[in-house]
Amino acid sequence: MDLPPRGFSATEFRNRCQRAQDLMAQNDLAALLLTMQAEVQYYSGFLTRFWESPTRPWFVVMPQSGDPIAVIPTIGEPLMRQTWLDDLRTWQAPDYTDDGISLLANTLMEVTATGQRIGIADQMESHLRMPLASFRQLEHLLAPRQIVSDAGLTRQLRMVKSKAEIDKIRTAARIATTAFDRVPEIAQAKVPLSRVFRDFQRLCLDQGADWVPYLAGGAGQGGYDDVISPATDAPLLPGDVLMLDTGLVWDGYFCDFDRNFSVGRPSDQVLSAHVRLIEAVNAAFEIARPGTLISDLFHAMNTLVNPDNAGSGAGRLGHGLGLQLTEWPSVIANDHTPLLPGMVLTLEPGMTLPNGQIMVHEENIVVTGDAPEWLSAPQGPAIRVL
Amino acid sequence: MDLPPRGFSATEFRNRCQRAQDLMAQNDLAALLLTMQAEVQYYSGFLTRFWESPTRPWFVVMPQSGDPIAVIPTIGEPLMRQTWLDDLRTWQAPDYTDDGISLLANTLMEVTATGQRIGIADQMESHLRMPLASFRQLEHLLAPRQIVSDAGLTRQLRMVKSKAEIDKIRTAARIATTAFDRVPEIAQAKVPLSRVFRDFQRLCLDQGADWVPYLAGGAGQGGYDDVISPATDAPLLPGDVLMLDTGLVWDGYFCDFDRNFSVGRPSDQVLSAHVRLIEAVNAAFEIARPGTLISDLFHAMNTLVNPDNAGSGAGRLGHGLGLQLTEWPSVIANDHTPLLPGMVLTLEPGMTLPNGQIMVHEENIVVTGDAPEWLSAPQGPAIRVL
Repeated sequence: MDLPPRGFSATEFRNRCQRAQDLMAQNDLAALLLTMQAEVQYYSGFLTRFWESPTRPWFVVMPQSGDPIAVIPTIGEPLMRQTWLDDLRTWQAPDYTDDGISLLANTLMEVTATGQRIGIADQMESHLRMPLASFRQLEHLLAPRQIVSDAGLTRQLRMVKSKAEIDKIRTAARIATTAFDRVPEIAQAKVPLSRVFRDFQRLCLDQGADWVPYLAGGAGQGGYDDVISPATDAPLLPGDVLMLDTGLVWDGYFCDFDRNFSVGRPSDQVLSAHVRLIEAVNAAFEIARPGTLISDLFHAMNTLVNPDNAGSGAGRLGHGLGLQLTEWPSVIANDHTPLLPGMVLTLEPGMTLPNGQIMVHEENIVVTGDAPEWLSAPQGPAIRVL
Repeated sequence: MDLPPRGFSATEFRNRCQRAQDLMAQNDLAALLLTMQAEVQYYSGFLTRFWESPTRPWFVVMPQSGDPIAVIPTIGEPLMRQTWLDDLRTWQAPDYTDDGISLLANTLMEVTATGQRIGIADQMESHLRMPLASFRQLEHLLAPRQIVSDAGLTRQLRMVKSKAEIDKIRTAARIATTAFDRVPEIAQAKVPLSRVFRDFQRLCLDQGADWVPYLAGGAGQGGYDDVISPATDAPLLPGDVLMLDTGLVWDGYFCDFDRNFSVGRPSDQVLSAHVRLIEAVNAAFEIARPGTLISDLFHAMNTLVNPDNAGSGAGRLGHGLGLQLTEWPSVIANDHTPLLPGMVLTLEPGMTLPNGQIMVHEENIVVTGDAPEWLSAPQGPAIRVL
């Protein structure tokens, strides 16, 4: 498989920061405080699986002008030195009396004036990736400077991907596509679902995934009843529908899509549900152009899979993706975000079958200036048979 | 491999809750608000990889008496119904105008009286797993009830593992032990480090891991310079030391340990550094009994690997583990926690070699009423040679 280069140019990071700083000026923010993996990675290029350890906080401070400043534990210094950032301030973590908070407060005070506002991500898909007690102490140290909402500016910037970002997501999706094509090697009647889950992750790695942070799925007679439970040791049975949904990572970027398989001959209900799901994805794909609204995508799919407009358990029919498995926006009736070139989305219709079971299908697309492009290799109407 | 049963008895969950409620009474907390994966899982048994999606918050409310209440997105209802909890309250997430916050506030108000205190985890290894704006709105809705520190009570309970929990960690460690024994199949001179990382994760899955949330490591001539960077495509070379450090999961519980390998003949420096690291682990193991302090473990190792007492980049020589890759406490000089039977710890000494490179070794142990037990199969003094 041809792979794009890893990493990004320093120019790309500088452009991201410049755009952030322009939005900071519009929103009267003298600095941004970044604590989450996705936003630290977005502006700095700091890519590590070490975030899995919740012990140490990591901070990047974005001033209104000039380059970002990393305020990080010593253990991360060699890796952060490999990024484009020059100004690194470190402490030896974990420190039970002051785990980087005074260093962070001093850095924020250095780049802001008394009474100015410091922005932090505070909306959907964000969380405060530091202990709450430390945050409250930080607010106390910074007063009368206030920590306020970043007005969603990083979320807004991240929603539109660069060509280099799209190439990474496309690569992740190509790897998953080839892994899905090998499912007949690992799944058939009598194989425990837990074995299928383990082996599918092995296939993803074998095809080139850096790691596999997410795998979900389900299996059941004529559909499944849940898509977030761990696999049990129950064996696949003839008549089962098997669904596998993976978020694998290549160079820090996710794909997120699924495939359905019928174990042996599918029932008529399953056949027609799969046809309907593909029709729904295609209906949204057809209109996914600049100017269309996210809510238009929702209605294009929902009309087909949920004609009586009952609420679905999933609550949405797709979402953004990139540095996170799921990103802003959500494909729901209340989201009126206009599509823009560079937006990467999942289209993820789900439906309830007459037997009460559910089926879900998901593809990944990118919006362009004209017709959209598939990032996953789109499924045809016929469900795959194992 | 003989595997223990998956899951826990309802009795075990009830005991955990009873202990929490006793500590709540001591700390004048009328309720606990749980937002993090590890604590939701600890009290409810709700086990899913769906936490990888940051879109939806998940809440469990622990009242001062009675069973916990789950306040969760509809998509999680089928799985939560499989746990021992009976009282489930759901909303269709994502909801841009009220993403569960009024439902959560009403639930908290139902189980507390005006002016009472609600505890939340706010210390090291914790974070607020919900958007900050939602949290601020919640505080506003609850006033004059206050959300205050949970006094670390869940951290304190989770630090001491039950027999069933230890069996899960032991299983994870046994799986990793057998995967490490197969490293000669995948690693040798000329193989790119990135290939070794992918293949080692495949071995972990092949040996029975449910998933592999964490893999770190390094490779370099006579040691390595960093342990948190992603693998590059650079091939292994004769004279390299390869280190692989994995946190794989079995039934929701982590192991976390590493192994060093010499590619071809090790240098005298590498040989003696590995001997010293094993001596350090053994020195801590020998004294890891009830009454010993965490700081005693630190000094037992640090005297051997860092005799001039210079600060190390890692900042600690081990930590707790269980539902998280790293948990309270940290093995540092300032931690004077007395060891208790049931504590599961990593012993993780690191040292700088005369050539400026570093080497790190890590094992997992459990403290008992008498001598400790190894959970990982302890390494001998001789570094493994590929």
